[in-house]
Amino acid sequence: MVFASKVVLAVGAHPDDIELGCGGTLYKAVQAEAQVIALYMTRGGKTTDAHVRMRESTEAMHILGVKEICFENFPDTEIPDSFAAMNCLEQYAIKYKPDIVLTHSINDTHQDHRRVGWLAMSAFRNVPKVLAFETPRVRSAAFLPNYFVDITGCVDKKWEALRCHVSQKEKRYLAYESTVNLASFRGSQVGVAAAEAFEIVKYVET
Amino acid sequence: MVFASKVVLAVGAHPDDIELGCGGTLYKAVQAEAQVIALYMTRGGKTTDAHVRMRESTEAMHILGVKEICFENFPDTEIPDSFAAMNCLEQYAIKYKPDIVLTHSINDTHQDHRRVGWLAMSAFRNVPKVLAFETPRVRSAAFLPNYFVDITGCVDKKWEALRCHVSQKEKRYLAYESTVNLASFRGSQVGVAAAEAFEIVKYVET
Amino acid sequence: MVFASKVVLAVGAHPDDIELGCGGTLYKAVQAEAQVIALYMTRGGKTTDAHVRMRESTEAMHILGVKEICFENFPDTEIPDSFAAMNCLEQYAIKYKPDIVLTHSINDTHQDHRRVGWLAMSAFRNVPKVLAFETPRVRSAAFLPNYFVDITGCVDKKWEALRCHVSQKEKRYLAYESTVNLASFRGSQVGVAAAEAFEIVKYVET
Amino acid sequence: MVFASKVVLAVGAHPDDIELGCGGTLYKAVQAEAQVIALYMTRGGKTTDAHVRMRESTEAMHILGVKEICFENFPDTEIPDSFAAMNCLEQYAIKYKPDIVLTHSINDTHQDHRRVGWLAMSAFRNVPKVLAFETPRVRSAAFLPNYFVDITGCVDKKWEALRCHVSQKEKRYLAYESTVNLASFRGSQVGVAAAEAFEIVKYVET
Amino acid sequence: MVFASKVVLAVGAHPDDIELGCGGTLYKAVQAEAQVIALYMTRGGKTTDAHVRMRESTEAMHILGVKEICFENFPDTEIPDSFAAMNCLEQYAIKYKPDIVLTHSINDTHQDHRRVGWLAMSAFRNVPKVLAFETPRVRSAAFLPNYFVDITGCVDKKWEALRCHVSQKEKRYLAYESTVNLASFRGSQVGVAAAEAFEIVKYVET
Amino acid sequence: MVFASKVVLAVGAHPDDIELGCGGTLYKAVQAEAQVIALYMTRGGKTTDAHVRMRESTEAMHILGVKEICFENFPDTEIPDSFAAMNCLEQYAIKYKPDIVLTHSINDTHQDHRRVGWLAMSAFRNVPKVLAFETPRVRSAAFLPNYFVDITGCVDKKWEALRCHVSQKEKRYLAYESTVNLASFRGSQVGVAAAEAFEIVKYVET
Repeated sequence: MVFASKVVLAVGAHPDDIELGCGGTLYKAVQAEAQVIALYMTRGGKTTDAHVRMRESTEAMHILGVKEICFENFPDTEIPDSFAAMNCLEQYAIKYKPDIVLTHSINDTHQDHRRVGWLAMSAFRNVPKVLAFETPRVRSAAFLPNYFVDITGCVDKKWEALRCHVSQKEKRYLAYESTVNLASFRGSQVGVAAAEAFEIVKYVET
Repeated sequence: MVFASKVVLAVGAHPDDIELGCGGTLYKAVQAEAQVIALYMTRGGKTTDAHVRMRESTEAMHILGVKEICFENFPDTEIPDSFAAMNCLEQYAIKYKPDIVLTHSINDTHQDHRRVGWLAMSAFRNVPKVLAFETPRVRSAAFLPNYFVDITGCVDKKWEALRCHVSQKEKRYLAYESTVNLASFRGSQVGVAAAEAFEIVKYVET
Repeated sequence: MVFASKVVLAVGAHPDDIELGCGGTLYKAVQAEAQVIALYMTRGGKTTDAHVRMRESTEAMHILGVKEICFENFPDTEIPDSFAAMNCLEQYAIKYKPDIVLTHSINDTHQDHRRVGWLAMSAFRNVPKVLAFETPRVRSAAFLPNYFVDITGCVDKKWEALRCHVSQKEKRYLAYESTVNLASFRGSQVGVAAAEAFEIVKYVET
Repeated sequence: MVFASKVVLAVGAHPDDIELGCGGTLYKAVQAEAQVIALYMTRGGKTTDAHVRMRESTEAMHILGVKEICFENFPDTEIPDSFAAMNCLEQYAIKYKPDIVLTHSINDTHQDHRRVGWLAMSAFRNVPKVLAFETPRVRSAAFLPNYFVDITGCVDKKWEALRCHVSQKEKRYLAYESTVNLASFRGSQVGVAAAEAFEIVKYVET
Repeated sequence: MVFASKVVLAVGAHPDDIELGCGGTLYKAVQAEAQVIALYMTRGGKTTDAHVRMRESTEAMHILGVKEICFENFPDTEIPDSFAAMNCLEQYAIKYKPDIVLTHSINDTHQDHRRVGWLAMSAFRNVPKVLAFETPRVRSAAFLPNYFVDITGCVDKKWEALRCHVSQKEKRYLAYESTVNLASFRGSQVGVAAAEAFEIVKYVET
Repeated sequence: MVFASKVVLAVGAHPDDIELGCGGTLYKAVQAEAQVIALYMTRGGKTTDAHVRMRESTEAMHILGVKEICFENFPDTEIPDSFAAMNCLEQYAIKYKPDIVLTHSINDTHQDHRRVGWLAMSAFRNVPKVLAFETPRVRSAAFLPNYFVDITGCVDKKWEALRCHVSQKEKRYLAYESTVNLASFRGSQVGVAAAEAFEIVKYVET
């Protein structure tokens, strides 16, 4: 597995974005001895208490085996397209020297998501592998998955992580069925039982 | 519903392609009093007896309520990119004057599928609405759905049709789970319980 | 007609954008008993008196039969890519529950137009049908019309609306010839006498 | 003008394709002392007498000032994607050493057009400038014009050439209005009175 | 040469961007009697003294024969997507009436570069020819060169200009080898010894 | 390295295509204990003696450490888009069960190259990783590399292989300088000394 023993940095806009986009992949990476860091750019405090959101994501990450969890404090729904935000991400690149970054697509209907996608493109320009994950808000006609990670056997674990988000539980995409449907559909596209889909931003095989 | 009382022509390369790509949509169209014609360009005789394949698709279409079912006899796996094949399709356009054509995408990994997609682009140039449906063989990074039909409540009917294909039953994409997963996933992208996804080739609203 | 008896919300950056992009379609929608709301994000006061611009668009909309006309007051030429602007649009979605939104493309050379396009993508994420209309400023190599509305018989009405914009009358795209040329050209692409062209952002057929 | 004193080779599938796609540009090139060669790959004999079609195109080209007119004899509606067809085009490249080739787009709904587009891509690989012109059959959602030639003052001449095609006169796109509409629309996209639109295949400025 | 005797405006985000993106082309334009203006939107003061950067670019431009060199003072790494920035560019359009603008691509991993690309799209909407040049930071999977300028014989001159940037000399892309590699590779794509590659934003041939 | 200990099948249209497109990658794969098979679809006999071409490629592959070298006998410059050709490729998939296929892009100006690209898309639909390599004939405006293999330290070996093609030595792209330029340029795009660029057709990480 390409993530084995590598440094993997996952960057999401809000608590739950990383779990949704690449929870299975991170779990698998952890199993393969990768060092995984999860970074949330906001604390998701717009409609729910930020402490609740942070606690939920922390629990979720623990279930996936991720131990390094960071929360920045950019304003939820208003992440700026600023040098400060870009520089914040760049500091993670400098500190952790990630081999692989997993983050948002620039083609997402959520303004925070697409901004993180653009910021990451600037901040992680020297990282060898950058992949954009799929969220419930990516634009269906503009997300072109060309990289799939086989997560067969990890779907239940992914869902275990997702159900930590009790405060968001009424959201359809956090239901067990949705988790299974997505993983099965993406798997069926490439001939495995379950997969997570990514769009390559940049990929250097060394 | 836009298909209501309209003439809808569905064109597939092989028996089961139409059912897979737009079975739910056709069922719904029939309920809405559309005149639906299903046309298969081959009889699927490459690996199974052609009579079996034809009988299975005929049963499947009957379950969906489609009464006009046509089988051309182009060679399975070798549909030619010829004037004869194009002209064959054009005769259906002349005979039925369809308002809407549902057919294959030009971005499909099956050679028969993509050829039908190109032939249809020529043959149905004067049809107001042409939509490319999704098959298990479309290229995941080149099928960009921008038109969805809500098939909530029709998924079981679609599967009832698909299971008529007893000769193909070992194929994963004909399983009940696959049918549900696909419909649920495509539905989740647009906020309905179940959907079929299409890529618009041409669409004129009159 | 798909707009018949539906709630249609048209969103433009400046007075005259809606008329230019979808005036014929709105007129036709009104004839078909749609409830049409026209929303302008600015009052166009940069180079002309805002009251004049508002009055002209109000007259134009009346000619098209549109009765609900709203003007927000974001700064002309400087519509911000802010949460406030996005939220403003979202309030219209909540209030009117539109079935169809017609708005700007994200591929437009006017900064206000493309920002409205992006804001709309976020704000109207739950609207079943979102279409981007064509303005004189869309990028010719990046506007890919795949949805056309037949406006045969409505072109003169569209022009009647456009000529209300007396303060802008020296602009070429507001001339009678331009109106006819565009409608005829777009019509010729799909085999009708006159049409307006759109790029689908999202389309769910229910 | 970039065509001035250059060798310009225009390649069309059928008599009238070149006139429609770049008649104004050729006229202008001739005025600017270019050596222009018009090559038709078929004689258009499918539905009309080939001699009539050839005579009409010859007259049309003479009106535009083009003196070298060649007709190959590939089967109308069935131009093959063969080495022979490619080689035929390559011989023109060898004989005339064109600086600029104007030909069909690979994104055209007419099978002959798109095949000529692909053949030209192979045959003219060493020509510095290759441009795809617009025909009434190009796919509206896949023709992305990024190169425009100002034909202000040449539109009437273009139409004079088009009306030589008496045998095709019932075709809408050969009407005077269509000629003017297209030229005016394409002109309006780039701020001139009239233009022809092209998609660059390859362009080297020497 | 299309640049001969024309007004050419090159716009870069930072000192060295113009030299890198189109130094050879500008040198050739100057030889062909073009009036060339180089405009830098920032003074590059983020990590080096701005006066040093300005002096280096001034020297570089003089080597290329460019005499009109302008420096705006937008903040390095934080060029705003504002009306003021757009208007600043528009004033250059009004003052110089450029025939051709050479500037950044909107698909660049550097935030300043892509913003200048977007600003230019708005500000130079009435300029007949706008080309986006290639920088070391353009996105390799989203920069689609379709316009090449033959700079055979000008590569050493380009490098002479680049090596004026003593303060940046540790950057790989400013090395002699990089300059030659890029020019040779882009040349090889179109059959000349050396070339600079551009993506057309808009091109009107008059 | 992802190729380590894997089965890698490289498919080219003509002797020298594989060496040019992925010679460095294959050499590296061999070093990492991959089982590499090189398959040429033609023997390149159009303009040179086929035995010479085969011998040259065999030598070249031996230099790269590739031991399994296969030559099919489809007609040079006329590889058919037939079921037979597709089936031929599929037999290799069945026999070798490759983990990774490296082959031509469908966007290549050489008709044989693009046909192999399409045939491969059908034949290798069940292979987890399919990558399209870069040839001197890929379309510069349609090859979008998103996957790079670091071949630092392997460029001389690649050239050693290329210079076996004595019969083709007058071709520019077989010169030492071209080999270095390409590798350096592609390397510079992703921050390594030398690289080969690929476009992902499909990629499943297991």
